[in-house]
Amino acid sequence: MPKKDNRKARPAERAALREVLRVGGDRPVDLRRFDPRAIPAGPADKAAGVAATAALADRLASLQERLYAASTAGDRRRILLVLQGTDTSGKGGTVKHVIGLFNPAGCRIKAFKAPTPEERDHPFLWRIEKALPQPGEIGIFDRSHYEDVLIARVRELVPRSRLGRRYAQINRFEQSLAEDGVTLVKVFLHISYERQRARLLERLDNPDKHWKFNAGDIEERSMWPAYQEAYELALERCSTDAAPWFIVPSDRKWYRDWAVSRLLLEHLEDIDPRYPKGDFDVEECRRQLLAT
Amino acid sequence: MPKKDNRKARPAERAALREVLRVGGDRPVDLRRFDPRAIPAGPADKAAGVAATAALADRLASLQERLYAASTAGDRRRILLVLQGTDTSGKGGTVKHVIGLFNPAGCRIKAFKAPTPEERDHPFLWRIEKALPQPGEIGIFDRSHYEDVLIARVRELVPRSRLGRRYAQINRFEQSLAEDGVTLVKVFLHISYERQRARLLERLDNPDKHWKFNAGDIEERSMWPAYQEAYELALERCSTDAAPWFIVPSDRKWYRDWAVSRLLLEHLEDIDPRYPKGDFDVEECRRQLLAT
Repeated sequence: MPKKDNRKARPAERAALREVLRVGGDRPVDLRRFDPRAIPAGPADKAAGVAATAALADRLASLQERLYAASTAGDRRRILLVLQGTDTSGKGGTVKHVIGLFNPAGCRIKAFKAPTPEERDHPFLWRIEKALPQPGEIGIFDRSHYEDVLIARVRELVPRSRLGRRYAQINRFEQSLAEDGVTLVKVFLHISYERQRARLLERLDNPDKHWKFNAGDIEERSMWPAYQEAYELALERCSTDAAPWFIVPSDRKWYRDWAVSRLLLEHLEDIDPRYPKGDFDVEECRRQLLAT
Repeated sequence: MPKKDNRKARPAERAALREVLRVGGDRPVDLRRFDPRAIPAGPADKAAGVAATAALADRLASLQERLYAASTAGDRRRILLVLQGTDTSGKGGTVKHVIGLFNPAGCRIKAFKAPTPEERDHPFLWRIEKALPQPGEIGIFDRSHYEDVLIARVRELVPRSRLGRRYAQINRFEQSLAEDGVTLVKVFLHISYERQRARLLERLDNPDKHWKFNAGDIEERSMWPAYQEAYELALERCSTDAAPWFIVPSDRKWYRDWAVSRLLLEHLEDIDPRYPKGDFDVEECRRQLLAT
């Protein structure tokens, strides 16, 4: 008697990474148990990783085109990549190197900064909803509504009771998005305390990178333990079936880029978008065209 | 006695293309005098053209980063690439292949469709203003406010007197943009009537491209002469010093991609954005960091 239903079995390579990196729904998340230098699956070194990422480009672009094409015939499906992580964890680098593999016309990128006065006057999800990808698009959030349970918690920007309700609000919001055709890919870029110091020092040592540095970064860093705890709570409470969290070890940039690319590929392959059929008479149109 | 002031002289290769492709301000524009298969400057064949475009990628990305970095210190300068051209002229292909050379995080792409009821209730520039690039960004318009003197003229969507005023309104609008730090790069992708037929037939012949085809495309094509005239008027009346038009021969896709890339490079080099100086004490920050 077979123990597994293998009718839907796929090659082992496929769909593997998201199972490996996914955060368990029920169990507490202890970030100290996740090594930011780990290579839990995939290419073993930098040369292989860079090559493997480049090798994904054609498939990603092709799936993106099909996703967009399908939307022109009413398919509402789309991707929303949510990138979170401390300063220097590589959110911007991921956009540059991973999203750079796609056709920019189909990407909707939003970097969330500190809320404006107008945004602060609205519920915290208001500005998020305005930045959502449209059907067929790949949306990318560099920071997101999770800031409202991260910096908001660490800096005590809202009363604890209001903060406490936000986790469930986020889960309901994401559930609704999923029901409307949004595939959420929520990625926590996990770096070590040491690696952050090294990257901040790199910025200081290179005048061309001074614009990326704020004196406030050092103060934020001093609150590292509180931020790690806030991330743990968010990962733990908001990793749902509709919208799971993935922890990507990000001390190695090449691994981070490969892993995020691979996660996007697996989700796009799962969506499996198809070119829509035309609603016109091909032969008649060809005849008319040839007459012009 | 020297005839020219050569202090600012640059290598002949630089800044050449925009002089070659620029539409003269005063003279009437007769599109029949511009060969859509011409190679007025630059690489002579496809292999050389594709290589030349790829060779520009690093300089473009580097200038873009500097442009963005400068904006963090208050520099308001930015680029706005306006792409116009008939169906199949390659607006989408240009975004994919040329804008794909940039960091997508710094690009703000807007494809303008037929105006919504809300947009029609506003002045025609209203939706344009909402889509403008912010300081440091590269904005890309796939179609633009020029549709309001193109399809609006050909299809007689507004009274002739109102249409007639729009050219001056556009010029004033663009003058204001230029004064606010926007470098406009307005590109007309010029293809031949024969090339359009061939590209439409390609779409019909490939089911994976049917989603790009509309039966209405054939009707639009039947108005080719009226559109060419509308383009001529727009190019003639709205090629100003503040915002000149460039005609890019676009029957050859590789030439189109090279020419638009090169135009962007020349304008970015002219802007010559610089990394801003940091406003913090580097040594003090380094000391603090090393203590963490």
